Amino acid sequence: MKGFFYPRSATGRSSLLPPPPWHYSGDLLTIEYRTDPTKVAALLPAPLTPADEDPGAVALIWADWQSCGDSKEELLDPIRAQYKEAFAVVRCKFEGRTYSRCIYIWVDKDFAMLRGIHQGYPKKLGSIHMTRPHPYGPAPRLAPGAVFGATLAAADRRIADAVITLRGEAEKNGFVNGHPMAHHRWLPAIDSKGGDAHSELIESTAAKFEGGKPWAADVESFKLYDVPTEELAGLEVKEIIGGYYRQIGVTWNGGRTLVPSPR
Amino acid sequence: MKGFFYPRSATGRSSLLPPPPWHYSGDLLTIEYRTDPTKVAALLPAPLTPADEDPGAVALIWADWQSCGDSKEELLDPIRAQYKEAFAVVRCKFEGRTYSRCIYIWVDKDFAMLRGIHQGYPKKLGSIHMTRPHPYGPAPRLAPGAVFGATLAAADRRIADAVITLRGEAEKNGFVNGHPMAHHRWLPAIDSKGGDAHSELIESTAAKFEGGKPWAADVESFKLYDVPTEELAGLEVKEIIGGYYRQIGVTWNGGRTLVPSPR
Amino acid sequence: MKGFFYPRSATGRSSLLPPPPWHYSGDLLTIEYRTDPTKVAALLPAPLTPADEDPGAVALIWADWQSCGDSKEELLDPIRAQYKEAFAVVRCKFEGRTYSRCIYIWVDKDFAMLRGIHQGYPKKLGSIHMTRPHPYGPAPRLAPGAVFGATLAAADRRIADAVITLRGEAEKNGFVNGHPMAHHRWLPAIDSKGGDAHSELIESTAAKFEGGKPWAADVESFKLYDVPTEELAGLEVKEIIGGYYRQIGVTWNGGRTLVPSPR
Amino acid sequence: MKGFFYPRSATGRSSLLPPPPWHYSGDLLTIEYRTDPTKVAALLPAPLTPADEDPGAVALIWADWQSCGDSKEELLDPIRAQYKEAFAVVRCKFEGRTYSRCIYIWVDKDFAMLRGIHQGYPKKLGSIHMTRPHPYGPAPRLAPGAVFGATLAAADRRIADAVITLRGEAEKNGFVNGHPMAHHRWLPAIDSKGGDAHSELIESTAAKFEGGKPWAADVESFKLYDVPTEELAGLEVKEIIGGYYRQIGVTWNGGRTLVPSPR
Repeated sequence: MKGFFYPRSATGRSSLLPPPPWHYSGDLLTIEYRTDPTKVAALLPAPLTPADEDPGAVALIWADWQSCGDSKEELLDPIRAQYKEAFAVVRCKFEGRTYSRCIYIWVDKDFAMLRGIHQGYPKKLGSIHMTRPHPYGPAPRLAPGAVFGATLAAADRRIADAVITLRGEAEKNGFVNGHPMAHHRWLPAIDSKGGDAHSELIESTAAKFEGGKPWAADVESFKLYDVPTEELAGLEVKEIIGGYYRQIGVTWNGGRTLVPSPR
Repeated sequence: MKGFFYPRSATGRSSLLPPPPWHYSGDLLTIEYRTDPTKVAALLPAPLTPADEDPGAVALIWADWQSCGDSKEELLDPIRAQYKEAFAVVRCKFEGRTYSRCIYIWVDKDFAMLRGIHQGYPKKLGSIHMTRPHPYGPAPRLAPGAVFGATLAAADRRIADAVITLRGEAEKNGFVNGHPMAHHRWLPAIDSKGGDAHSELIESTAAKFEGGKPWAADVESFKLYDVPTEELAGLEVKEIIGGYYRQIGVTWNGGRTLVPSPR
Repeated sequence: MKGFFYPRSATGRSSLLPPPPWHYSGDLLTIEYRTDPTKVAALLPAPLTPADEDPGAVALIWADWQSCGDSKEELLDPIRAQYKEAFAVVRCKFEGRTYSRCIYIWVDKDFAMLRGIHQGYPKKLGSIHMTRPHPYGPAPRLAPGAVFGATLAAADRRIADAVITLRGEAEKNGFVNGHPMAHHRWLPAIDSKGGDAHSELIESTAAKFEGGKPWAADVESFKLYDVPTEELAGLEVKEIIGGYYRQIGVTWNGGRTLVPSPR
Repeated sequence: MKGFFYPRSATGRSSLLPPPPWHYSGDLLTIEYRTDPTKVAALLPAPLTPADEDPGAVALIWADWQSCGDSKEELLDPIRAQYKEAFAVVRCKFEGRTYSRCIYIWVDKDFAMLRGIHQGYPKKLGSIHMTRPHPYGPAPRLAPGAVFGATLAAADRRIADAVITLRGEAEKNGFVNGHPMAHHRWLPAIDSKGGDAHSELIESTAAKFEGGKPWAADVESFKLYDVPTEELAGLEVKEIIGGYYRQIGVTWNGGRTLVPSPR
């Protein structure tokens, strides 16, 4: 039986995902801010602990991707390559090392959702939109003063939106999402008595990375909407740290187990 | 940390899924047919073996659902309750007992996709449509001679469609999907050397069931389209067994492990 | 060149719409309420004037339809037949007669949007959901005490939602949407100097109608959300009149000109 | 009453469209080919006649747009600015002058559909995808040898797809879509006796234009699929003329009447 994940068949042709490595081209629009650190701590299951420095820092990141496996064939049937996502990242500590961790994430395609199960991203479907830079007409260039909007909705409710103005080049694309990711891969037990059949703490990071200079941006507007089905707005904005925009290329090729699933 | 599956939080409020039991109201339109038994056998990983009788029987089932957890709150925010699916089922044998097994399935909502990961259904997103019975106007009643259509697409390609005419009441709603389900719950290893971190064979079946009398139907038209991203059409139609329509209510409340994940 | 509306071709086969009559099967969930009558009057262009009685009455109606032309072929390729809509209706007066008039409407399919251009409905695309009655499982029956939810969103923002509980049979399905419709069919002038190339006041009503007994319902919850792209919430709820649910079949077969387009 | 088109209100705030001018930034992927000229002629209603030269030339154009009115506010709530379209263009003659004419078009947003009614484009909703150039990662740069795919579907059926490889800079972005557009603005009569209440032949062209150098491309693959709801495949490909890719900025600000609607 072939096929990296579901479905598996004799040929693997219909599998929703090719095996890693997975390659990505995309634009990131990032807002970093500080919330109450106890709210972040409440989202970190043992053995993770809060980061030593700035433990209330949060990044909300919008991304507009084209992705593919090694054959790159998805790029030419682009409904299978293009997707957008928005995700909230915090930092945490494990065995003395600082990690990034995605606590909420919305994507708009099934292949992205299934990759999330593999990588430990807590994915839901959402509707994500970002202004795209363009060299002609009314859309913004990548240049000082250019204005970009980003919006997020799920289940027919607006969850977050933001407007930023590019200021100039920056050294870094923020700091909250800059560490290897520490994620839990959970699979609840089938017998409904509760508990997980699989619960593994893993680390993963980019296998390859290239990108343009990050842009620092002024955050003109940033709203988190309180809706019954989400908890992102519970991470209230106490203080804006900054806005960023960056174009990147990245390859993901698996990770490693930090804490294996208990038996 | 609360939340049945992803995401987990202090309250569990934003979790995409409530814990089972999950309750469903819906209509099923079923086409049963025979294909080459070796094609079915090729989709059965060890330790499953082909069914003793009619090992080439396949059911393609369209379903139009409203589903919810015990609180039933999703029913009143129906974007979170309503979904449609189409799925192909075959039979197999394990330790002398006959099981049903879903080999391909498409759904149109994220909560259904994540439930599939838990239950071992190989779910992709698709676009699924079924004629709905209605007591007034041009739509069909549930009565002899009523005509229903069903269509399935994914990644912007039509995969299957069917038209059936209700004939009269039947004793059973087909036989291929009538056994407990035997599914694999797979989670690929994170290190990309291949293999699975979790690979469990489970059994599950309805915890509660009610329904109207099944309708037997003539299959007026039934097409499987050969598309590059799917393998359903590889299960060629050698002979139509029959068509069925049924309205049901069902509760799913977990299952049990048949073969635990190897260590 | 054949084809009722766009596109037209030698055969008309690819036309988005067959010619009328158009036939519909569907369920209507209606909330009637009173707002400030001056807000309603501000939405009535000359020569329409406010209704004599209860001029601040508004109906917000959710509808879950299957529709088709005389061939009924759309019903068997149901992506071309099924759509949902939500629309706000007020009453007005023309030449001494009372009319209903749709002031805002959202639909989820292109064929419904193009029909709106023909009929003078001010249609946008939206995301509309309604609980559906079902005879089995957790979904409600059409019976006293049954609870139904309805939601409306557009451009990724929730615009309205409601929950009603069926009480018992009613004589009427409300009164606001009970008159012939008086709509303007506008086509702006192509030269951008402003003004309309076509501006016709028309009347239309159902050519054929059948339906079950209406249900009267208690309105448990009814919210209009203030969003930047819509004005529905400007018609504030001063007083709830009532809730209704009804299953109907209806045929629309054109209307007549009340005031022709000026030259 | 304010509002360029539907809906109109006291403020015009909820109108789906701002008044022109409308500004666009976008990428165009074009395939030009020859079909049987009688098939093109059959799509030209009087008083239009076939073009003198190359009367069987057809362009199928995919476009990925961001558009807005003069306020540009849609760009910052990008679900209201971004859309994709695919459209087939032929040439025709009126009073001795050559025009381009769109004969089939699919878009993926309501504002684009309503603009089409104003401009005489025969729009349906569709699902349109194009590979996007990107400076990093696996997606193609705008450079010789770069490969782009484009796909079109509607009503859950694939209608067309293409793959092109950029070769080098070209003088022109093809020739079929290079003239002012000659379109009919039709509004069928409301009384269903047939005929149009409004039938106007208009001309329109870009009010402002900027763009990069066009790219000439090899057409690696180009398929039109025969589906029951469309007639594009009836314009069979007899000979490929060429492929093109271009990034442009354009402003549309109305047109003028060539033949007014008869009375």
